[in-house]
This record gives sequence, structure tokens and C-alpha cells, in this order.
Amino acid sequence: MPSSVSAQPVIILVGTQLGENIGMCARAMLNCGLDQLRLVRPRDGWPNERARATAADADCVLENAKLYDNIDDAIGDCQRVFAATARQRSLRIPGLDLREAVREIVDASPPPKTAILFGPEASGLDNETLSRADRLIHFPTNPDFPSLNLAQAVLLFGWEWRQSSSVQSAPITSSDLPATREDTNAFLTRLEQALDESQFFVAEGQRPDTIRKLRAVLTRSNSSDDDLRMLHGVLTALIKK
Amino acid sequence: MPSSVSAQPVIILVGTQLGENIGMCARAMLNCGLDQLRLVRPRDGWPNERARATAADADCVLENAKLYDNIDDAIGDCQRVFAATARQRSLRIPGLDLREAVREIVDASPPPKTAILFGPEASGLDNETLSRADRLIHFPTNPDFPSLNLAQAVLLFGWEWRQSSSVQSAPITSSDLPATREDTNAFLTRLEQALDESQFFVAEGQRPDTIRKLRAVLTRSNSSDDDLRMLHGVLTALIKK
Repeated sequence: MPSSVSAQPVIILVGTQLGENIGMCARAMLNCGLDQLRLVRPRDGWPNERARATAADADCVLENAKLYDNIDDAIGDCQRVFAATARQRSLRIPGLDLREAVREIVDASPPPKTAILFGPEASGLDNETLSRADRLIHFPTNPDFPSLNLAQAVLLFGWEWRQSSSVQSAPITSSDLPATREDTNAFLTRLEQALDESQFFVAEGQRPDTIRKLRAVLTRSNSSDDDLRMLHGVLTALIKK
Repeated sequence: MPSSVSAQPVIILVGTQLGENIGMCARAMLNCGLDQLRLVRPRDGWPNERARATAADADCVLENAKLYDNIDDAIGDCQRVFAATARQRSLRIPGLDLREAVREIVDASPPPKTAILFGPEASGLDNETLSRADRLIHFPTNPDFPSLNLAQAVLLFGWEWRQSSSVQSAPITSSDLPATREDTNAFLTRLEQALDESQFFVAEGQRPDTIRKLRAVLTRSNSSDDDLRMLHGVLTALIKK
């Protein structure tokens, strides 16, 4: 069992509607030994009494939960981002079944700081958020009745993580970890500014789509700090004329 | 996936207190392709409106549920009985971790008719009932916070059963194939020329290393034709000044 907090995936609940569900997620997490919870814009506000009521004795997870205004801040210090989603989307992000995804998380060495995103109860994660993910996690449930509730999806993730990580061997170290999302975003922001200055966006509606695709390309590339330094250098050279 | 009903374990809820929990169990079962439910003396009577409310669209499981007065009738037609329990009791019944238990169930050939017993929410199964079991199933959760709610225990059983008994699920396919290496290289060549024109390569020795890194980033990004078109557009915009 990894004992250090850094090896533990961070559970990020994005736009959760009901406080009750946040409490049930906290309980399911602690059942599996997970206690790093982040919340992005929970609909009913935070802190939330109803969350406390359903958390059973997992209040400690709620008390330590961190609240964020937007997804980029929530994943800013993370190096790998996985997103739970029921459907395959068009972003060309590799999809894995839950057990394979957990194996990839547990086998990574040294362990990168990893976030697992779960979307709102009714709609799931939108494309804007999914474009931040390295991997989509698919839950192979009954195709005729696939829909898990939020806390059950979190439970299954936690369960698989606990089952896999309890047999994990000692990590081998390497200095070549992926860059953090904060640093990746800083590059994207700079690129967007450069494109603005070049009047790249003829129609304003083109902007979000292009940025989303660029983000997806960069995310899939799994670039390191060293790669990002090089990309900054390339961008500087290209725009200096 | 075993399709015959006889190969499916029967879920037996013994003395369940809340109708809501029976509904949530039905939903969790159907998520995993299980639909054989039996109820022994549910405290709040049967049928139960609250069960229907929490079953989402898994009403069919509730409608087909069979009601029993006592455990012996409920397991009468079964050949193997497993009992979910949080604690190890003194009955000297062999205990297995959930995953091992499921493997034993799935590997049995020919498949015996198997029942899985789950006890009341507050107390779990009593010794009188446990004494009917061939095996006790233990859920290896966090020892400092082990208690699963009823529907979550049923979900974990169903999940493990589905994972073990399903033939490898079909891979998630995407219609959007990666670009050919030829097209990827064409972009890299164009980028290299642009960098040349910007006097990016101060020392000539820097060139192969940079190109190799850029190629690695682009390769890992697994970009499609559509992505490459966008990247060409971005490059055109950046160098046009």
C-alpha cells in the first residue's frame, strides 16, 4: 500500500449537483484509503451540510477537501489527468477500461501526481473539461443499463486502485516526469496570445475549438519540463521576426 | 458474458431495513448485468415504494424479485452459498477476499447455482444465517474505515463478477486515425525550415537534438490529419509577420 500522500490519486469532482453525493463520494474514497478530494464549482455551494450527513464518519475527507473556481486551478499541480466518462468523445483521447487505467496509474514510476475527474451527475464531463485529460476511463458495466451513480463510480475507481496498489512493488526513479498542468497551460496561453497578434482567429467562434484541439495535442504528447522549455524556445523564434 | 440465467449468481438480501437500499442494490446489480434478486423478510415490507424510487430504471429487477419468509427457502434451489460479511466469525467457514471468491464462483464448472447473501445494514448477517454458507466473502477495504453500505457491497460483488466473467470487452474504437508518418514528417520539415529562417539554431549541433525532441512530442501526441491541418495553420500564422 503506498503510504505517501503524493502517490495517492487526487479525486476531483467537477460541478457536482448534490451535496449528498459529495458526502457519499467521500465515504467511498475513505473506504478505499483515498483522502485527497478537490471540488470544482459544486452547484449547491461549499461547505455543505448534506454532504456531511451522507459521509458517515468520513468527515475528515470533507474537511480537507479543497475548493476551486475552475478546472485548470484544480489540476494545476498534477502531472497526469484521467477522466471518467460514459461515452467515447471526439477528442481522440485514448480510452481505457477502468482496470487497465488503474494499472497504468499504479505502474507509473516514479508516480506522477495524478488527478481523476468525475463530472456532474446528470451530464457527465463536458468536452471543454475532457480536453484536459490524458486518458478517458471507461467503466465496462452492463451495456443495457450502464449508468452508475457518482459515488459508485468513485467507489469502483477506489476499489480497483486499492486492489492494484496493494501488490505494487517499489518504484524505480526517473527524472523525466511530465510537466505540471500549470506549466502546460502557461505555454498554451502564450501560444494563444501569439496567434491573437497574428490575427489567426478570423471568426471568434473558431477560438475555443482551436484551443481545445491544441490542448488535446499537447496533453497527449505528455511533454516534460524539458520539452516545454524547447517549445517556448521554438515559439520565441517563430514570432520574433 | 454468461447469458444464461442459471449461471448468474442470485443476490439474496436478508432482513434489509430500508426500502431505499433495496432499490439501490437493484440498480447496482443491473449495472453489472445481474437481475436475480431474492428478499428474506425485508423490515419495511414488500413491495416497497421507496425501493422503486431509488432503483432508477432497474424496476424490472424489483418486479422479478422473490420474497421469502426464511433463509432456507430462499437458498433451497442453490448449490453453493457465499455470504458477505465484514468480520471473520468463529464458525470456521473458509473466508475469501472478494476477488478470490468471485474467481471460485466463475471458475466452477459446470456452474452450480450460487447464492450470495448480504445482511441487514446495521448488524450484518447473524451466525444462524452464516452457518448456511460454504464461504465467507471478505471485502478488503481500508482497515481504518472498512464499512461499506449495502448497495456498495452489492456493486463491488457485481463488478468483480462482471469483470471476471466477461470475455474481454471490445476495445473502444475511434474513427479518427492518426496521420501517416509521411504527413507528420512534412509538418516537421516545414517547422524546421521556419526555425532556420528565424536563426533558431545558434550552434549547428543543436539541430538534431531539437528535431528529435520535436518529433517525439509530435509522435506522442498521436495527431490526426485534422490536428496536422490545424498545426500547419498555426505555423503559417506565427511566421507570417
